[in-house]
Amino acid sequence: MNKLYVKKFGGTSVGSLERIEAVADAIAKAHFNGEQQVLVLSAMAGETNRLFALAAEVDPKAHPRELDMLVSTGEQVSIALMTMALSKRGVKARSLCGGQVKILTNSQFGRAAIDKVETEYLKALLDSGVLPVVAGFQGVDPQGDITTLGRGGSDTTAVAIAAALKADECQIFTDVCGVYTTDPNLEPSAQKLDEISFEAMYEMAKLGAKVLHPDSVACAERYRVPLRVLSSFEHGSGTLIRFDGTDMAEAGIVGIAVSKGLGLVSLSEVAKNTEIEKALFQCLLNGGVETDLVVKLDAADGLGLTLPVNAMEQCLRLLDELGSQHSLGTVSYETGLAKVSLVSNGELALTDVASRVFEILAGVGIQVKLLSTSEIKLSVVIAEEKLQHAVRALHHAFALNKV
Amino acid sequence: MNKLYVKKFGGTSVGSLERIEAVADAIAKAHFNGEQQVLVLSAMAGETNRLFALAAEVDPKAHPRELDMLVSTGEQVSIALMTMALSKRGVKARSLCGGQVKILTNSQFGRAAIDKVETEYLKALLDSGVLPVVAGFQGVDPQGDITTLGRGGSDTTAVAIAAALKADECQIFTDVCGVYTTDPNLEPSAQKLDEISFEAMYEMAKLGAKVLHPDSVACAERYRVPLRVLSSFEHGSGTLIRFDGTDMAEAGIVGIAVSKGLGLVSLSEVAKNTEIEKALFQCLLNGGVETDLVVKLDAADGLGLTLPVNAMEQCLRLLDELGSQHSLGTVSYETGLAKVSLVSNGELALTDVASRVFEILAGVGIQVKLLSTSEIKLSVVIAEEKLQHAVRALHHAFALNKV
Repeated sequence: MNKLYVKKFGGTSVGSLERIEAVADAIAKAHFNGEQQVLVLSAMAGETNRLFALAAEVDPKAHPRELDMLVSTGEQVSIALMTMALSKRGVKARSLCGGQVKILTNSQFGRAAIDKVETEYLKALLDSGVLPVVAGFQGVDPQGDITTLGRGGSDTTAVAIAAALKADECQIFTDVCGVYTTDPNLEPSAQKLDEISFEAMYEMAKLGAKVLHPDSVACAERYRVPLRVLSSFEHGSGTLIRFDGTDMAEAGIVGIAVSKGLGLVSLSEVAKNTEIEKALFQCLLNGGVETDLVVKLDAADGLGLTLPVNAMEQCLRLLDELGSQHSLGTVSYETGLAKVSLVSNGELALTDVASRVFEILAGVGIQVKLLSTSEIKLSVVIAEEKLQHAVRALHHAFALNKV
Repeated sequence: MNKLYVKKFGGTSVGSLERIEAVADAIAKAHFNGEQQVLVLSAMAGETNRLFALAAEVDPKAHPRELDMLVSTGEQVSIALMTMALSKRGVKARSLCGGQVKILTNSQFGRAAIDKVETEYLKALLDSGVLPVVAGFQGVDPQGDITTLGRGGSDTTAVAIAAALKADECQIFTDVCGVYTTDPNLEPSAQKLDEISFEAMYEMAKLGAKVLHPDSVACAERYRVPLRVLSSFEHGSGTLIRFDGTDMAEAGIVGIAVSKGLGLVSLSEVAKNTEIEKALFQCLLNGGVETDLVVKLDAADGLGLTLPVNAMEQCLRLLDELGSQHSLGTVSYETGLAKVSLVSNGELALTDVASRVFEILAGVGIQVKLLSTSEIKLSVVIAEEKLQHAVRALHHAFALNKV
């Protein structure tokens, strides 16, 4: 039985007719080598943004159903052009919209969740030697309306199809060679990882490594789909994301993820009052403010939370309202911050890591504004202008240039 | 019961966001005046050609199924943007692809024919006060594949929906004020017609008046849908195309249609041999050459046919092949020709008209290369460089500037 791969190509990978032809070359070669393949494509780079901009000109508050009707055309163009390029090479191929595959979602337009991927049509095509070319990022709801999965959702489409078809591997082709120990733009000695555990990849993705969308990683883990990140521009085996991490190297820091553009809000008098705490988070939730890290320190009666800096104004407005009903103590805030997160391949003695991080950063004169740990990661919030400095110091100290 | 109108807007009518907003203004006004409306939209001007050009770059012989998948996105963008513009004005509206309406077609990709328009969804929307905004030019085949009706097919979509819903009128909004006695660019005294019979409109459309697609006129006649052509840029009642022509003015020439870029092929020895004749047309059909006028003159043993000049080379090649098996006599050809057609509102004594036309054109020194009549029209083929001269002479002689 030939191996079955679901291969997803992102916007830059199909960003021009030249790129589409190059991808078609590679896919045709694999096809004639006997691989079974399902392609999942994003819109050509820039197209989704162009369509959103058109919509914003008509109505910045356009209904999400109509936005989905609009932006889903981007992927439809990609799959038609790719199918033509494959047919020209003698590969029997057929383009399919989300609704034609029957990628069934709920009706949360703009951020729909996949309920089920029907496999009947895909399997029939594969059985008859036809290569399905599927529009990523989109599905269809129970009313027959076109939905989209939100930005980055093509990865999730690929993973969901791979899971439904029980594919041997889901391959995410992107413009980098795989998952790196950190952003090579910040630290040139960053190393490509040959493999990484799902847990670590999930944290890396959530913490700002843009190579994969966290939802798609979580989906792959849930369905135990082996996932691989590769370059669509260069040869190489990329990074395999494994759910069977038993034979991997001993647990240690595998990567440093970064996230910029953060603000920090601190409250001095809420920690001991669970009522206020509950009211606080309810109020932020209702007001549409998504917080990032939350740190509470009972001993100091303090609570700190980070959030995207563009949500700061709304957050302060909500706290002001809440302050008229509850005593919040001193509310202070700071902007121009970044988060640096160390992610490990397994459970670590994070207290040890924390003390090393404090020591390393103090050694290069960087102040830690907030520190937060979970089972396999540790995040510190620092001034954004010190970001590169911090990443380099940590990358070196944890010997990530030697993995 | 409020009147129900199906209103179709073509590419230039929705060619920019400004145009979309202007159309939305007019539709919202009619909506709040109590009109029931279904909109049918084309792609924004230039978009379909842009998509076809992309496809041609990938593969000039792309499979029609994939072309339909590609170009159908053009209308999808229009309906989403228009629905946003209507919603912004407080009109409850919903965009619908051909497949969502269930515009059921056969599987002739690129030139599909509509088998049926399901009305259930449209009626449910109208009953609940929601204005359906439907993608023209597209449907769905029994396999669930997206089909297109061919260029100009949005008119047919509108007519088919109007027929299925038994709408009071199908209104085709375009960039001219209605149907004219002839092309105003050729003859400034051309008059807008307030009404025209279906038969005459059908001939005008077939003979080169670009205001309506002949298929949509034929469809409107078949289902007895009152059809009106109006300007989307200017106020006015346009031209009503009537199937109940009994109370119209007495039969007479109502318009002059023109068609440019023609070639003429003449054979001197086929007319008396029906076998050769059969072989000739079979050979042209198989070779993909669509002929326009065909004139046969037994007495002179001659046969002449006109065709688009870009098909001339292929036609001559086919005749050359055929000539090796059959005696075709002298094959001569001429290019740089145009066709001028006089269309009447009812049956005419066309022999009289023919003699007048010969006389008028001879009077201004224009040679008639070929003449052909049918029940309600008379076409002459002349040198294209004499076209404007001929149209003006005929328009004046038949007093069309005074309708």
